Amino acid sequence: MEGSQNGGVEGRGISMMTKKATKHRLLGVVFVLLIGLGMSGTGALADPLPSWNDGPAKQAVMEFVRMVTDKSSSQYVPPQQRIATFDNDGTLWCEQPMYFQGLFAFDRVKALAPKHPEWKERQPFKALLENDLKALSASGEKGAMEILMTTHAGMTTGEFEKIVKDWLATAKHPRFKRPFTDLVYQPMLELLAYLRENGFKTYIVSGGGVEFMRPWTEKIYGIPPEQVVGSSIKLKFEMRDGKPVLMRLPEIDFIDDGPGKPVGIQKFIGRRPLAAFGNSDGDHQMLQWAAAGEGRRLMLLVRHTDADREWAYDRQSPIGRLDKALDEAQRRGWTVVDMKKDWKKIFPFE
Amino acid sequence: MEGSQNGGVEGRGISMMTKKATKHRLLGVVFVLLIGLGMSGTGALADPLPSWNDGPAKQAVMEFVRMVTDKSSSQYVPPQQRIATFDNDGTLWCEQPMYFQGLFAFDRVKALAPKHPEWKERQPFKALLENDLKALSASGEKGAMEILMTTHAGMTTGEFEKIVKDWLATAKHPRFKRPFTDLVYQPMLELLAYLRENGFKTYIVSGGGVEFMRPWTEKIYGIPPEQVVGSSIKLKFEMRDGKPVLMRLPEIDFIDDGPGKPVGIQKFIGRRPLAAFGNSDGDHQMLQWAAAGEGRRLMLLVRHTDADREWAYDRQSPIGRLDKALDEAQRRGWTVVDMKKDWKKIFPFE
Repeated sequence: MEGSQNGGVEGRGISMMTKKATKHRLLGVVFVLLIGLGMSGTGALADPLPSWNDGPAKQAVMEFVRMVTDKSSSQYVPPQQRIATFDNDGTLWCEQPMYFQGLFAFDRVKALAPKHPEWKERQPFKALLENDLKALSASGEKGAMEILMTTHAGMTTGEFEKIVKDWLATAKHPRFKRPFTDLVYQPMLELLAYLRENGFKTYIVSGGGVEFMRPWTEKIYGIPPEQVVGSSIKLKFEMRDGKPVLMRLPEIDFIDDGPGKPVGIQKFIGRRPLAAFGNSDGDHQMLQWAAAGEGRRLMLLVRHTDADREWAYDRQSPIGRLDKALDEAQRRGWTVVDMKKDWKKIFPFE
Repeated sequence: MEGSQNGGVEGRGISMMTKKATKHRLLGVVFVLLIGLGMSGTGALADPLPSWNDGPAKQAVMEFVRMVTDKSSSQYVPPQQRIATFDNDGTLWCEQPMYFQGLFAFDRVKALAPKHPEWKERQPFKALLENDLKALSASGEKGAMEILMTTHAGMTTGEFEKIVKDWLATAKHPRFKRPFTDLVYQPMLELLAYLRENGFKTYIVSGGGVEFMRPWTEKIYGIPPEQVVGSSIKLKFEMRDGKPVLMRLPEIDFIDDGPGKPVGIQKFIGRRPLAAFGNSDGDHQMLQWAAAGEGRRLMLLVRHTDADREWAYDRQSPIGRLDKALDEAQRRGWTVVDMKKDWKKIFPFE
C-alpha cells in the first residue's frame, strides 16, 4: 500500500546513506540493493491486481498504465503529470446504509446528548435520539446542517482529529459488525498501489469532509493528508492561552462534490488528472474534466452490482446515485467495473 | 533543484527496471547504481549552501536539518512529516518596488486598454494609464480590487495560465532590466534543494495568487503546482461548446496572508510545518503555527538589509513590513537572516 511514496523514501535513503559512504559501507549498500532487486524481481512477475478477474475493466486499466508509462509509446506521460484522483465513498470504501460520516455525526450527537438535555425536545436532535428516521428526514437540509455543525464545528482541528480517531477505533458498521476502515475495497487498494508503483501520485477527491478523512487515509490507503481533497468548513486562527489554534467554525467553506470536484482539483492540485475514479453522479464532472485533457486518459466508474457481498444500487439510489455518469460512460466508452463480475474479492477480510 | 522528488523517481525507476530483470540487466543496474553512489558520495562532501556565509543563520539551518534527519537523535522526524513552508514575495524572490503580481496587473490593464476606450475617463484605470500614482493610490482598496478582478477574472484557468506565461517571457523588472524569474534568491534556491535532499517536502505558502505562481514554480524553484498554496478567486465549472472549462470568477475565495497562512496550511496540506520561512509580518502567524508544534522546529525570517545588491527595508515599509514578527523572532530566538552579512550572493546571475 505504499508504492511511490515508498520509492521516494528509499531514494532519499540511498542518497543519505551515501553521504558518509566508505568503501565498506558502499559494498554493504550494494549487497542490500542486490537482495532488494532480486526480491522485487521475483515479486514483479506476480499479477499486480490479483483481486480483479480478467475482463475488460482490468484490461483497460493495465493497458492504460502500460501506454502512459512506456517511454517508447506516443502516449507516454512524464511521472510528475501522472495524477490519479479517487472518489472515496462508494469508490474506495462502502457508503451504505448511509455515508459513514453521517453515522459518525449521529454517534456524536448521542455521545454529546447528556450535556444537552434540551435536545430531548428540540428537532432534529429529538428525532435522532429517538431513532425516528421519518421525523429526522422531515427536518431536511436545515436539520442536516444543524447536526453537521454541532458535531463538526466548535473545536480545534487537533481536537476534531482526536474525536475522529477515537470513533474509528471503537465504532462498528451495522451490517458487517466491523470497524469502518475494514470496509475498504481490496481491488481498489491493489489499484492504488499499482498506480503508485507506476509513478502516479494518488489523490482522494471526495464530497466527504477533508478533516474526517485525513486522520486515517495514510494508514488505510497509503494516501498522505496533503493528498486528500474534500469538503470543508471554515477555520479561524486564534491564540488560546498563548498558544495558536485553528478553530473549526460552523460555516461551509467548500463543497467538493459534482461540479465542485474539478474546482477542488484545480484549487488543491492545480493539474488535471490523467485518471479519475468514481462511482456516482457526484463524480461525473470530475471524470468529464479528466477526459477533456489531451492524450490518453482513464475514466473509471465502480458500479455496485453485488447485493450478496456488498450492495446493488445505481440509477434510483438516494445515496451514490449513478445515472447520468453511467449514460455518459456507456456513450463514451469509459470503463465501468461490475463489482460482482470483475472483483474476485470485495473486502480484505474475506 | 530536485532532491526528494528526484529520489522518488529514481526509487520508482529501480522498481520498474527490476520487473523484467534478467541477470544481465541486473548487473547493468548495479553498475549504474555504483556510479551513482560514487558520484553522490563525492558531491556530498561539498557545501550544500555555498552562497551562505558561515554564521549563526547557516549554522542554525544545518544543525536543524542534522538533528531531525539523524535517526539516532531524540529529535528525529520521519520523512513524511518533514514539511517546509516558504513565503514567496520577499522570501524566495524580490517584492520591490512592488509585488510583481501588481506589476503584472498594471501591464495587463495597459495591454487591454485599446479594447476599453472608456477607461480613459474611468478610475482607477485612468490613473493607471496616465501613470498617476497619487490618483491610483487614492482609489484605495476598491480601486485595487477592480484592477485585480479586471486582470485576473473572466477567463478560463487555461487562458489565465497562458497570460501569465506570456507576461513572464517578455516583461522586465524596472530596476534590474531582467525577467522577473531571474530575481530569485540564490541562497534560497540552495536551501530548497538542501531540504529536499534531506527528505523535506517543500511548499510555497504565499499571499500571492496561487494561479499566478503555479505556471513557473516547478521550473524556477523545483516546487510542483500541487505544492503551491496561495490566495485565490472563485472558480466555476461549466461546459463551453461541449467542453468543460473552469471559469475564473471576480470574487475572492481565500486570502492566504497573515492569520490566513496557518489556515491555508491546514486546508491544503493538513500537516503542521516542521520549518517555516518568511520575511514579513504577513508570515508571523505561519511561523507561530510552526513553532507551536512538538519537538525541534526551524523558524526563519529573511531580513532585507542590502540596499546596494537588493533593498533595505523592515519596520516602516508599506510592502513586506517586518515589525511584530521581528520582535517575536528576537524574543524567541528564531533565526533571522541578514541578507547583507549572511549571503555571499543574492541572485543567480551575479
